[in-house]
Amino acid sequence: MMEETLRAYKERLEKALSDLPMEGAPDILKESMRYSLLSGGKRLRGCLLLSACEMAGGNIQDALPFACALEMIHAYSLIHDDLPAMDDDTMRRGKPTNHVVYGEAVAILAGDALLTHAFEIMAQSAHPSAFQALGEIARAAGISGMIAGQTLDVTMEGSKPEKELVEKIHLGKTAALLTAPITAGLMLAGASEAQIAAGREFGMHLGVAFQIVDDILDLEGDPALMGKTLGKDQAEGKLTWPACVGLNQAKADAKQHIDSAVSALVPFGKKAEFLQALAISTLHRVQ
Amino acid sequence: MMEETLRAYKERLEKALSDLPMEGAPDILKESMRYSLLSGGKRLRGCLLLSACEMAGGNIQDALPFACALEMIHAYSLIHDDLPAMDDDTMRRGKPTNHVVYGEAVAILAGDALLTHAFEIMAQSAHPSAFQALGEIARAAGISGMIAGQTLDVTMEGSKPEKELVEKIHLGKTAALLTAPITAGLMLAGASEAQIAAGREFGMHLGVAFQIVDDILDLEGDPALMGKTLGKDQAEGKLTWPACVGLNQAKADAKQHIDSAVSALVPFGKKAEFLQALAISTLHRVQ
Repeated sequence: MMEETLRAYKERLEKALSDLPMEGAPDILKESMRYSLLSGGKRLRGCLLLSACEMAGGNIQDALPFACALEMIHAYSLIHDDLPAMDDDTMRRGKPTNHVVYGEAVAILAGDALLTHAFEIMAQSAHPSAFQALGEIARAAGISGMIAGQTLDVTMEGSKPEKELVEKIHLGKTAALLTAPITAGLMLAGASEAQIAAGREFGMHLGVAFQIVDDILDLEGDPALMGKTLGKDQAEGKLTWPACVGLNQAKADAKQHIDSAVSALVPFGKKAEFLQALAISTLHRVQ
Repeated sequence: MMEETLRAYKERLEKALSDLPMEGAPDILKESMRYSLLSGGKRLRGCLLLSACEMAGGNIQDALPFACALEMIHAYSLIHDDLPAMDDDTMRRGKPTNHVVYGEAVAILAGDALLTHAFEIMAQSAHPSAFQALGEIARAAGISGMIAGQTLDVTMEGSKPEKELVEKIHLGKTAALLTAPITAGLMLAGASEAQIAAGREFGMHLGVAFQIVDDILDLEGDPALMGKTLGKDQAEGKLTWPACVGLNQAKADAKQHIDSAVSALVPFGKKAEFLQALAISTLHRVQ
């Protein structure tokens, strides 16, 4: 049942992303933006936002522009992350990365464009909580959130793996942009402060668990299934959770975070079942 | 008198930029952002916003976060523009460019961070027109505005200089981000639709004139005064207005655009004097 609901959210989101207005953009820019934005992926961020909004009784139609915005921000971060000056990745989801296809200049611009367009799309919403939700997403994507994590990830490469630092990287790089969909989705549903705080707790634990699982998959995953080069983290001295605590402890910690995430949503009762099941399914990738 | 008013706006803006909260940002990111954001410059975009807001009876204090946001967006665009994969510039305002000092990875992230932080700062405003002004700025910085112009500028390099294409580049690359300060400033002052339309007319003509003057200065300017490498446009086959119409016609066209800009603000009466004088002063750089 969880799989079915997820598929329904995803289909709705894929259609909205594919129909996204991009008037005025030069053809090459539009093509490069769409190449990365419509290249599949789990759509986790967008689906989290739609389901969080529904969990609190909100309207999915109102939430769609914000779900699209999150997917655009995620896509921009991957394009810039893959650049030669950054992680220098040539494959992503089984396809050549954006700069391999369009060149570095257009890839940089396409990333900038996706980030800016996310805000342009959100700013067109007439929803009474649109401005608040936009602020929440800006903060998560910003200098105390995703960009903080990415900066530490890039500049601390090769330094000693210490738990505090790695957790800071995970909270920024991954958890911030998995928490904002929950909190923004709840805001768009008119949720209470207490509900938003519970959602924030859920998102942070889910996000940290998700990154730990990603680190584990880089060590143990199947490259054919993953559609990208594996084993790179270790080779490049990336700061990962398994490097801090060992593989077994990393698996235990991921499970612990998912337990905490599931507990955080108890106040939502049966309506939280989808998000709780989704959180638990994260662990199936490595267990 | 115009100079004095401009200096007052600029001082106010410099202080706000220097005091800008950047909590949570890793030190190296903050340093790199501030290196480019606080490296001087004319602060034209921010000053335009403050003065447009005042021209329509608005409060400068309310407008400051938006003026800062525009300067952040301008700074991000210069950092990314200077990257080796883009214009490959090593000097800007008499100082080494961001990537020369901090490396390409941090420079890309600092650009992303300035863009995102602009939206984060605007989203913190409690002004009733904040959301509308943010949308106006997002559109100007986006795929039909600044990024459209930059994409054409980068990808059409070396093609035949045709007036229609060059005007499109100028409208996007420069005029969009000189128009948004005017329209957003007017929105924050609660101006009427007609006033906003007049402001848009002014901004577009000023912006096109400004870029034509910039193109002329690249041919005729004094490198010591400009603080950057000159003559690069021609060497790289950049599409410039003088390359389309010749140097003398380019000067005449700049003057024509400034005349139109000045006329557009006639409905504001004496209150428009500062912006009109500022527009006219643009021409002094080349005449």
